[in-house]
Amino acid sequence: MQAICLQDKSLKFIDNFPQIQPQYDEALVRVHLAGICGTDLELVKGYYPYNGILGHEFVGEIIKAPTAPERIGERVVGEINISCGICDSCVTGLTTHCQRRSVLGILNRHGAFAEYLCLPLKNLIPVADTISDEAAVFTEPLAAALAIQQQVHILATDKVLVIGAGRLGQLIAQTLALTGCDLQVVARYDKQRRLLATRNIISIKETQIQTDYDIVIEATGSTEGLTLASQIVRPRGTIVLKSTYKGKTLLDFSKIVVNEIKLVGSRCGSFKPALQLLEKKLVDPTILIEFSYHLNQALEAFDFARQSGKFKVLFKII
Amino acid sequence: MQAICLQDKSLKFIDNFPQIQPQYDEALVRVHLAGICGTDLELVKGYYPYNGILGHEFVGEIIKAPTAPERIGERVVGEINISCGICDSCVTGLTTHCQRRSVLGILNRHGAFAEYLCLPLKNLIPVADTISDEAAVFTEPLAAALAIQQQVHILATDKVLVIGAGRLGQLIAQTLALTGCDLQVVARYDKQRRLLATRNIISIKETQIQTDYDIVIEATGSTEGLTLASQIVRPRGTIVLKSTYKGKTLLDFSKIVVNEIKLVGSRCGSFKPALQLLEKKLVDPTILIEFSYHLNQALEAFDFARQSGKFKVLFKII
Repeated sequence: MQAICLQDKSLKFIDNFPQIQPQYDEALVRVHLAGICGTDLELVKGYYPYNGILGHEFVGEIIKAPTAPERIGERVVGEINISCGICDSCVTGLTTHCQRRSVLGILNRHGAFAEYLCLPLKNLIPVADTISDEAAVFTEPLAAALAIQQQVHILATDKVLVIGAGRLGQLIAQTLALTGCDLQVVARYDKQRRLLATRNIISIKETQIQTDYDIVIEATGSTEGLTLASQIVRPRGTIVLKSTYKGKTLLDFSKIVVNEIKLVGSRCGSFKPALQLLEKKLVDPTILIEFSYHLNQALEAFDFARQSGKFKVLFKII
Repeated sequence: MQAICLQDKSLKFIDNFPQIQPQYDEALVRVHLAGICGTDLELVKGYYPYNGILGHEFVGEIIKAPTAPERIGERVVGEINISCGICDSCVTGLTTHCQRRSVLGILNRHGAFAEYLCLPLKNLIPVADTISDEAAVFTEPLAAALAIQQQVHILATDKVLVIGAGRLGQLIAQTLALTGCDLQVVARYDKQRRLLATRNIISIKETQIQTDYDIVIEATGSTEGLTLASQIVRPRGTIVLKSTYKGKTLLDFSKIVVNEIKLVGSRCGSFKPALQLLEKKLVDPTILIEFSYHLNQALEAFDFARQSGKFKVLFKII
């Protein structure tokens, strides 16, 4: 099968990757569309020593399911954490933190930039007919954006700032806007501001940032973003860390203590609420799509996605 | 009046400090006992450029109250943050975060290492007759320890670790023990372990620290303590930062994000619950008292308090 592999930090299109086969309780999925995410770009840079087929944002169709033949033909998206079901984290319901987990296209599990992928049946969630492939492929990052609201109670009376208006920042902004909170998004580029404006979301420049935000979402993954967040959040306010940070980051923790600030690390979310939002058309991630490539254009696609100010780049596989 | 002053990082006993007088709505308090806290030691080291009478842990008696003569004779402790009552923080009830606050013996307000101090009447809380001066002088740090439970819901089913068994760590341990949680306290010194044992609190050595704690209280203020906390707390667990940190601290924030850890900065607490615990004899801070000095033994007292492994040093003023 065709696939895009990462091998020793080198990205390669492989025309004849050995066909993968589902294990017991897994399904084989024919991938329709897959999206390049910031994590993929970081993996290529060597953020984590992963070798294998890249990609974890996808929509596809179940074409083989040895233990559940009735599910063949289902159009599905897939939860990316494959959990053991028996460790301490799993038995307390924190399956995304399974101590023995593999993660699609990120950790010990071939990913979605291929004609086929395998996932446990329990990870595969059906997609309603009214949701297009182009929208469904955003389920995973949309779920990650929604995780913020699973972890922090955001009120319509809250003054909220999102730092960063890139791929994830835009989805975070769209989901936060639904709470009716007083929302501002720091956007560097005109294009980011235009996209936010199409959803009636207020964007501001860095020079317009105020103080005393109840909640600040840090979506840049930079030391500057984190420092800024700690300076503009109100006492007893909350900072949500919604990006991965490379290496160690310096922070003035006395400010965190004196102002009694809460920092909340946030990673993956649940797929079902994300699919609900898509079905009800309450968010529209498709405005972020820049371009679709074929798998054999891997290097070109990654080069394009890597350019600053670019939003979502897809691989159209079927 | 006699007082211990900090002037340009230099500690001085002054025999004839000008007598202070209460402003409108303030009271003059004759100080009975005052305690040296870690913050006092840090102020002397220059952690914050404070000049004036030091000290913020005290118990005393109201001897002058121009607008409330009926309160003269009350034995009191005092909330250390003097708030304006009209700023954004005050009107939302966060008076300890008042944007124009002064803080007794810490910021723009002469402190408690003196024969007399002044505080607004609303800051002065009466002490029940059944609470000794020696216990009441611990109200402020005990309130700070209890702040943890105002900010984080600790369950009897939680596995909790306190890193640091010094002055504040001991009080934190005594208050946490009341929740019935599975509590362990990392203690370096035999004396720390003995004090914990008198309250039936389990102490462990650094080599005995486990993993997967639901809640970790970091009470050392060190980079090592913070790093350790981030490594041993369970995914979706909580780290409470209960100490001041000097300068900037390096932390691996990717661990905070990937494990979705919550960090909570914690500073001051409410006095009334602290006084309730003292009245019901549910905690006993007096076991921490090392020695009482006179005000004119200021340098000696601070030198003693600064020695590692020392707990509470008091000034006996009346």
